Amino acid sequence: MSDFETFKEIQKQMKAYQLVLGIASWDSNTEAPKDAFPYRSEMLSIISGEHFSLMTSEKYKKTINSLMEQLDDLNNQQQREIKKAKKSLDKIDKIPKSEYVEYSRLVNMAQRVWEEAKEKDDFEKFKPYLEKIIKYQKKMVRYREDTDNPYNVLLDDFEEGMTMEKYDAFFDKVKTELVPFVQEILAAKGEENDAFIHKKYPKDKQKMFVEYLLDVFDYNLDRGLLKESVHPFTWNTHSKDVRLTVRYMENFVFSSIFAAIHELGHAIYEQQVDEMFDMTNLKSGASMGIHESQSRFYENVIGRSYEFWSVHYTKLKNTFPDQLKNVSLDDFHRGINRVEESFIRVEADELTYPLHILIRYEIERAIFNDDVSVDDLPELWNKKMKEYLNIDVDKPSNGILQDVHWSGGAFGYFPTYALGSAYAAQIYYTIKEELDFEELIEQDKIKKINEWLKEKIHCFGSSLTPEEIIKKVTGEPFNPDYYIRYLKEKYTDLYLN
Amino acid sequence: MSDFETFKEIQKQMKAYQLVLGIASWDSNTEAPKDAFPYRSEMLSIISGEHFSLMTSEKYKKTINSLMEQLDDLNNQQQREIKKAKKSLDKIDKIPKSEYVEYSRLVNMAQRVWEEAKEKDDFEKFKPYLEKIIKYQKKMVRYREDTDNPYNVLLDDFEEGMTMEKYDAFFDKVKTELVPFVQEILAAKGEENDAFIHKKYPKDKQKMFVEYLLDVFDYNLDRGLLKESVHPFTWNTHSKDVRLTVRYMENFVFSSIFAAIHELGHAIYEQQVDEMFDMTNLKSGASMGIHESQSRFYENVIGRSYEFWSVHYTKLKNTFPDQLKNVSLDDFHRGINRVEESFIRVEADELTYPLHILIRYEIERAIFNDDVSVDDLPELWNKKMKEYLNIDVDKPSNGILQDVHWSGGAFGYFPTYALGSAYAAQIYYTIKEELDFEELIEQDKIKKINEWLKEKIHCFGSSLTPEEIIKKVTGEPFNPDYYIRYLKEKYTDLYLN
Repeated sequence: MSDFETFKEIQKQMKAYQLVLGIASWDSNTEAPKDAFPYRSEMLSIISGEHFSLMTSEKYKKTINSLMEQLDDLNNQQQREIKKAKKSLDKIDKIPKSEYVEYSRLVNMAQRVWEEAKEKDDFEKFKPYLEKIIKYQKKMVRYREDTDNPYNVLLDDFEEGMTMEKYDAFFDKVKTELVPFVQEILAAKGEENDAFIHKKYPKDKQKMFVEYLLDVFDYNLDRGLLKESVHPFTWNTHSKDVRLTVRYMENFVFSSIFAAIHELGHAIYEQQVDEMFDMTNLKSGASMGIHESQSRFYENVIGRSYEFWSVHYTKLKNTFPDQLKNVSLDDFHRGINRVEESFIRVEADELTYPLHILIRYEIERAIFNDDVSVDDLPELWNKKMKEYLNIDVDKPSNGILQDVHWSGGAFGYFPTYALGSAYAAQIYYTIKEELDFEELIEQDKIKKINEWLKEKIHCFGSSLTPEEIIKKVTGEPFNPDYYIRYLKEKYTDLYLN
Repeated sequence: MSDFETFKEIQKQMKAYQLVLGIASWDSNTEAPKDAFPYRSEMLSIISGEHFSLMTSEKYKKTINSLMEQLDDLNNQQQREIKKAKKSLDKIDKIPKSEYVEYSRLVNMAQRVWEEAKEKDDFEKFKPYLEKIIKYQKKMVRYREDTDNPYNVLLDDFEEGMTMEKYDAFFDKVKTELVPFVQEILAAKGEENDAFIHKKYPKDKQKMFVEYLLDVFDYNLDRGLLKESVHPFTWNTHSKDVRLTVRYMENFVFSSIFAAIHELGHAIYEQQVDEMFDMTNLKSGASMGIHESQSRFYENVIGRSYEFWSVHYTKLKNTFPDQLKNVSLDDFHRGINRVEESFIRVEADELTYPLHILIRYEIERAIFNDDVSVDDLPELWNKKMKEYLNIDVDKPSNGILQDVHWSGGAFGYFPTYALGSAYAAQIYYTIKEELDFEELIEQDKIKKINEWLKEKIHCFGSSLTPEEIIKKVTGEPFNPDYYIRYLKEKYTDLYLN
């Protein structure tokens, strides 16, 4: 057996473990009963341990290292597979198995505890878990790299090539340009016909409308399904099993509609990856940032456009005739783009959204530079909310406890959300040049837009790097100015003209 | 580490594999999208292979064999664990791993194909899979044992100690006593007010009523959940995660109601196993037959009794006021116990049910004695339906394709259903002596009945054999006469008096 064949064989075994761990995680996050968790955590840590053993086995390491010497004999795709595997290997090779197993068990439990803590608005309940997770994260970074900037290592994990330096420059632009612009917009806001937003929209009707959206966006139900969960997410094992979840809030219908369109962006991306990658480590989206660019593109650029609702508003109005009585298309369009100071990131409007991320970025940065203790996090969070968004956080579930990420150990993830929006804006100015973008939306032909994105981005999976994709699609490297331009154009038009 | 500790350690690893395979199977059977299956089957066969390697590792074999020599040094529970493990080991030890992996892949695919074949009423589609499964089963039996009666080996797999000889005697009694009795009952049937049975009962209302039943039977929702699937089933990983599914047929409300009560019997059994067994191989019910005795007991003895509906019929009537208008409690009670010639086993009445099993038993018996080819199975099936139930099967989905079992390789399973009903009858005559059985049902105190069953049967998991349980609970060995007596008393009372 050649080294490359050995590599493929071990990769396949790893994929098998990832599949069952993935399915178990889907189950845990959507329906597993409360009392099942202690036993389940213990058992899953054994399977994670086996996966880990495989990933760090001498045979696998030897094979990868040997293949790194023979790169020239491999074709482009094979080279990318090996380099990607080598990078993953380097990331974990130095972590002792027992700690990896312990850590898996911890985050399994922590996610459950976080859910309860959030429900009971009790940060103290979650705090010891958060402390342990951060401690583990710092320790694991140290195993991997001798660095003065542990946060850089985590940032790079979620977006290849990104560093504090680059993010500082990006968020500096966000802070300088957008914080005052948001205040300007908020000051200019007049009386709106927007009482409809928080009327009661029954859950079953919302579900019907979300199912309609699956069809509008040409989501393939032979390759996925829609479900409910506490926090909306997309889940996939390969291009033929890509699922999404939403939650239904009866007093806030936008939550399910735009979470659905957002997750559809992620899901359509994964469904459109070429199936030739199914059995490789290139089968999933290129990076967190590129992924988020797609979900943001679908959610905001398409889903909050006037053109989109000019064709689908009738359906919505027929679904909710009482709630939307006397609400014109104009009212509705302004309603879905309403800017306001709000607590919850996932329900924030497109303009204030990057400020929510700015806060998380600065807090994570401080955590990993040892500038803040976990005890002080709620206060720090609330202080920044006041500074950037000018609001007072009333309870932990509206503040520090709102997101699932930290309970899963995902530090360095949040910044990719804002980066994704910025990528999306850059892609938007390109797609407008190549397609009759607005017309396609108005003609209910999102399928054509899917096809363009498939050809330009989706089909490649992660066989290209984020930088390569952005360059290839837009003809230039990542440039955050498009993002500022996009937001200023859109919201000036909506509020200042 | 002592041998027993080594044994426990390997058992725990095996349980971890069983957990993830179990969750994947739950997902496959309730919601996984159509196109996901080829990739999934391939990956799951790798995990099954790992599980198999563990089960057949030299270390594990050596440990078990060594412990078999030291049984006297172990306590009762430990002895039972080792004996049970030894028995399982002997069953698979002789099957080559590659064939086990191939076979797992085959049944994974076959279940999907069966579903499609049933939907399209196309036996030919399923036939090659069925042939292969039977071939594998025969081959695997031969690996295990040099026997002239391969079916005996399978019968024993599903019910310890059972043989064709014993089942022949049992089914002979069923055939001699019940086939003519059923004809007598059918001849005596008069005009009934039963048009309500096939009225339209909307799915969402059925679901509400089934949720009400979960409460009536004191099913613990912190340890399980209710879902939908093509074929109702109960699923569990340990006493704290025990789930059940039903299906909702809008033109046949009894289907969801009695499937739910049936599955609740299985589920409550599993939820009531003492948690001290969670980490052992004794954590699940004692046998298929004992399990089925519980589901049949809940479904038929409790769920179809006059006393049960005297307290719950009002709720049902309030849920379906139009459908049940002018239907008295008496009409309803006769309706749920209506005897008729019918195609589908899972919807058959309590009296004709054992005749459905008789057919399957005789066919399986013939398959494994090489008396029939797969080509001839549909015809053979239809012939027996005519002979015992006097009806002509119109299409495969009403005949040979109706059950999931064979697509999963489960031959020897069906007979335990009838055996379970017979156990249930024997238990019924005991419980009546020890509790005010009918009064408890009338007073909506099924919890008390659960407690009795927990103390007498459920709490033991499989730390006792089926024979030990029946003897312990009823004071005598299994005696099928109780079953014939129970059915004759009940249906004489309903139809002949």
